[in-house]
Amino acid sequence: MADNPIGLQIYNLAKRLFPICRSLTGDGVRESLKIMQQVMPNLNIFEVPTGSAAFDWTVPKEWQIRDAFIREVDGGNLLSFKENNLHVVGYSAPFDKVLSKEELIKMICTLPEKPSLIPYVTSYYEERSGFCMAYNDILKLDKPLYHAVIDSALKDGFLTYAELLIPGESEKEIFFSSNICHPSLANNELSGPTLTLALAKYVETLTNRRFSYRFVFIPETLGSLVYLSRNLEKMKRDIAAGFVVCCVGDEGGFSYLPSRSGCTLADRAAKNILSALDSYKSYSYLERGSDERQYCATGIDLPICSIMRSKYGEYPEYHTSADNMDFITPKALEESYKIYCSAIDALEHNATYKSTALGEPQLARRGLYPTLSYAGSAASVRDMMNLLAYADGLLDLIGISGIIKLPMNELIPLALKLEREGLLVRV
Amino acid sequence: MADNPIGLQIYNLAKRLFPICRSLTGDGVRESLKIMQQVMPNLNIFEVPTGSAAFDWTVPKEWQIRDAFIREVDGGNLLSFKENNLHVVGYSAPFDKVLSKEELIKMICTLPEKPSLIPYVTSYYEERSGFCMAYNDILKLDKPLYHAVIDSALKDGFLTYAELLIPGESEKEIFFSSNICHPSLANNELSGPTLTLALAKYVETLTNRRFSYRFVFIPETLGSLVYLSRNLEKMKRDIAAGFVVCCVGDEGGFSYLPSRSGCTLADRAAKNILSALDSYKSYSYLERGSDERQYCATGIDLPICSIMRSKYGEYPEYHTSADNMDFITPKALEESYKIYCSAIDALEHNATYKSTALGEPQLARRGLYPTLSYAGSAASVRDMMNLLAYADGLLDLIGISGIIKLPMNELIPLALKLEREGLLVRV
Amino acid sequence: MADNPIGLQIYNLAKRLFPICRSLTGDGVRESLKIMQQVMPNLNIFEVPTGSAAFDWTVPKEWQIRDAFIREVDGGNLLSFKENNLHVVGYSAPFDKVLSKEELIKMICTLPEKPSLIPYVTSYYEERSGFCMAYNDILKLDKPLYHAVIDSALKDGFLTYAELLIPGESEKEIFFSSNICHPSLANNELSGPTLTLALAKYVETLTNRRFSYRFVFIPETLGSLVYLSRNLEKMKRDIAAGFVVCCVGDEGGFSYLPSRSGCTLADRAAKNILSALDSYKSYSYLERGSDERQYCATGIDLPICSIMRSKYGEYPEYHTSADNMDFITPKALEESYKIYCSAIDALEHNATYKSTALGEPQLARRGLYPTLSYAGSAASVRDMMNLLAYADGLLDLIGISGIIKLPMNELIPLALKLEREGLLVRV
Repeated sequence: MADNPIGLQIYNLAKRLFPICRSLTGDGVRESLKIMQQVMPNLNIFEVPTGSAAFDWTVPKEWQIRDAFIREVDGGNLLSFKENNLHVVGYSAPFDKVLSKEELIKMICTLPEKPSLIPYVTSYYEERSGFCMAYNDILKLDKPLYHAVIDSALKDGFLTYAELLIPGESEKEIFFSSNICHPSLANNELSGPTLTLALAKYVETLTNRRFSYRFVFIPETLGSLVYLSRNLEKMKRDIAAGFVVCCVGDEGGFSYLPSRSGCTLADRAAKNILSALDSYKSYSYLERGSDERQYCATGIDLPICSIMRSKYGEYPEYHTSADNMDFITPKALEESYKIYCSAIDALEHNATYKSTALGEPQLARRGLYPTLSYAGSAASVRDMMNLLAYADGLLDLIGISGIIKLPMNELIPLALKLEREGLLVRV
Repeated sequence: MADNPIGLQIYNLAKRLFPICRSLTGDGVRESLKIMQQVMPNLNIFEVPTGSAAFDWTVPKEWQIRDAFIREVDGGNLLSFKENNLHVVGYSAPFDKVLSKEELIKMICTLPEKPSLIPYVTSYYEERSGFCMAYNDILKLDKPLYHAVIDSALKDGFLTYAELLIPGESEKEIFFSSNICHPSLANNELSGPTLTLALAKYVETLTNRRFSYRFVFIPETLGSLVYLSRNLEKMKRDIAAGFVVCCVGDEGGFSYLPSRSGCTLADRAAKNILSALDSYKSYSYLERGSDERQYCATGIDLPICSIMRSKYGEYPEYHTSADNMDFITPKALEESYKIYCSAIDALEHNATYKSTALGEPQLARRGLYPTLSYAGSAASVRDMMNLLAYADGLLDLIGISGIIKLPMNELIPLALKLEREGLLVRV
Repeated sequence: MADNPIGLQIYNLAKRLFPICRSLTGDGVRESLKIMQQVMPNLNIFEVPTGSAAFDWTVPKEWQIRDAFIREVDGGNLLSFKENNLHVVGYSAPFDKVLSKEELIKMICTLPEKPSLIPYVTSYYEERSGFCMAYNDILKLDKPLYHAVIDSALKDGFLTYAELLIPGESEKEIFFSSNICHPSLANNELSGPTLTLALAKYVETLTNRRFSYRFVFIPETLGSLVYLSRNLEKMKRDIAAGFVVCCVGDEGGFSYLPSRSGCTLADRAAKNILSALDSYKSYSYLERGSDERQYCATGIDLPICSIMRSKYGEYPEYHTSADNMDFITPKALEESYKIYCSAIDALEHNATYKSTALGEPQLARRGLYPTLSYAGSAASVRDMMNLLAYADGLLDLIGISGIIKLPMNELIPLALKLEREGLLVRV
């Protein structure tokens, strides 16, 4: 079997989705979600009409983009949407003109400080037509006239998103949200929805799921606002913990971005799992930038945080053509997948236990304690004794894990063993 | 216009008051308050008779001092009250005797470790007659006999203090207290009452004052006890925040002395304003030494703290003849004035806001958000987004300022703008 | 008088008890407690029959040990219980066999990493017969056959413990627990019960005791479980603070092991007293190892912690023949005794006071404040002023001691003086 088999599956799905031009709305989103539906047939796709209200916002016109290019008036293409869909400013209005070089340059966004990279730019809420190019390439323009064409349309249509529910014993939910609105960008964002889909497959393998699991695939900001405006009451009632999954494919170290309060069950699970690593970077909510902006807004206040690798905005490839399929790896995706699976396991098995004995129980007669006592003989059962000492009916396992400094994946089997022995009961 | 125009006004008033011999009681206090009344005609002067009770204390006899000197029996003055009023121990009883050199020396306080400076000494609560001299000068005494005279009187009279109220929309008050009981000492204390008077003038310029402002000018310790004993009920009901203003004229760095609890509105405003400086020194309440001793005593518990420059007791010139008009500067007074004005502004505009939108509001359509989105484009509106994110109806602006690390003078205009846009409401 | 007179008394009692072979049960415990009864005739000895339940545990058969040896078949003793009772694994079943060298070695516990020391080993809860030897000595075995004898018995009998109550004004108790189940081991454990007995003598000298004092001498783990199972209701109602006294005889620095919560009155007293030392080591409850395991178990939750010198398990001599009478000293015992006496004094005099004056009281007229006021003149009364400032009817003296950084032994006399002056009242 290959190294990182699940990472490779995630990577290959991302590779298949990579060329599609997703945006806030449009056929690119639809096509992407349909490919994901092939992996998880229960994925439900929703269409929300232009003009629909979402709190303070309104769903705009749908954007369709067929082609775009800049061409020398008598020559070949200088730049083509079909080569790289980042070349068109997202939501560009239709355009077809012959322009002077100077006029053309005014329409083009570049990154002079990263001269070989094409920036990713959008203009959802003001009608514009624009191109994006590498700064080096703009320097090579030497003709007086160019023909610039954007073969796009902005008309009444729909905002498209998808949702997948995997029910468990309880209506209480673990919630995952990931974005599907970026064109050919790999870490931010295709690593997010593809890894989230793999998590859904993992959840399906869990028997006796305590929680229900909900996975939503939405365009950033407006998508989460649309979703929230349609589901807020149920979300506030049922979401026990949730995660915004993005930037999980590069080989940078792990990072954590808290919910606004920073101490929800999701935060506690995330910090518990990450603290078993050698290190991870902990951001402040002031450094937020994805859909936790909506999920954790005042009055919404959902228990949702993020576990990432290199955070959006913090790596040089972010929102450029360098955030491509070479920037993410099966190995990194597999590691991120495992971290999220650990968080799921921690949440599934987190429970508040109470020791049934007054004082320490007599473990030796149960074969759980060394019968020969000498200096250091109790070390082997120290973790078990610590679990019993803190199982006070108030602390949950995540809390005990932090106090006794034992990772959840080692603590959970101990708790289950002591529960079977009748020495711990759930409260 | 001169640099530091307000600092210069404060300095000049202090210079005019400097030669007057103030004490716990007496005409020096009366004369000083009358000069201050010329600046603020609404200043009310109160006279509290000898024998009046103030909690555990009693107003003592009033002290009048006309002159004092030490003179060689057949020669000129060695030392004269008229040259420097620090030469007489405060509250000295009348004295007129020819003394041997040894007898004289027993009456004289010096500072051997600061041999060129005259100490400031008082004996309010035990009747004494005494002189203060530079240690170097006592070494020069070479005659067998000296004539020592203190032309003073201790008789039934009054303790004098003054009060100024500038009403606002609310009966809730911001309270300022400063001492007027030290003779020719500049930083501790004339910088205090003169700067406080300038704050009163500043408050008069504020239109739509939310708070009322009260300024009291009292002798230290007994004055605050007298004032408290007459006004405690109202003070406990109405004082929202208060400051003991002293040691604000030297060029040392800023310092903060908390109230006993350390977390009142006054403390929060002081720490907020000071934390915008490069640095400031934070003392403990254990290092208190002025009227916060009374204002924050158990059972009184007012929300009162101090913002100072070099704190009393912490600078070598403290309570010596070197704490003179050269030790304080218009520049330092102006800086201190501005810090206190900032605290006033922070208190006036502090409010608890709630975001009116669920999720983030759509700012782009209000012209408040960049419409072209690229890596880093949201940085310019980050502070506004942070304010919206934390305006939860629980945190006040001072609290939000601390969390989002934005000084109140930048946060207040943002809050007012969003309030005008209907995106924030006061709760 | 000798240096360390009380330390010497403690040391001499430990020396007398040292040769006796104590264990979980048996005549060694009885004999030790009877010797201790000679010191404190009110010590009550209790016998709990084999088979008695103690929560999840059962009192096992009583162990009697008369002799044990290993001998060359035709030669002299290699090892004898009478030389050092550590040579026999505690609770060894009777044994009398001629064994091959190889068979014999399987019965012997050694410490290869400390080759000259005999380990201390027990097997209370599984029937075994075994010996303990220095590893160096096992290397010298060169005969093919040995005769190994353990002249012991395991039969129905009793678990023995003792208790001493010194009543005070209140039924509220300060509780001390120390172990009497180790054979010839000095720091862990004889320093514990012998010092505890000296504390009982100290408590007897206290007139007007506010608290009652209870001292229990029990075998570790099972003894505390037996004691708890018989007294839990009263203990939960009446114990105000308690200490597990062990490892108090060596010259290592002081250390503190908290109760599970870490903030009980016992913890506060212990930390207060220890913080007056230059330094002390603070352990976590995760490093517990003595009867706090039972006293602080969930559902029992007594306010009990430990003040020790070198903690069990943390010094190389622990549970070996090197933890002998040379390892503990009268000097160290006297120091530990004084620390515990200070904790007792702190608890006895701890009270919640309220200042009777509004504002600061006028101390000068009571002769409590310097009447000549100059820079620094109030320093001499700073502690008294701080006590008055924090006597708010909420903080107790231990709390105030921590805030104003004044040790309890200096704070208590100040509080009593101000109480006599009518300036403080107890609430």
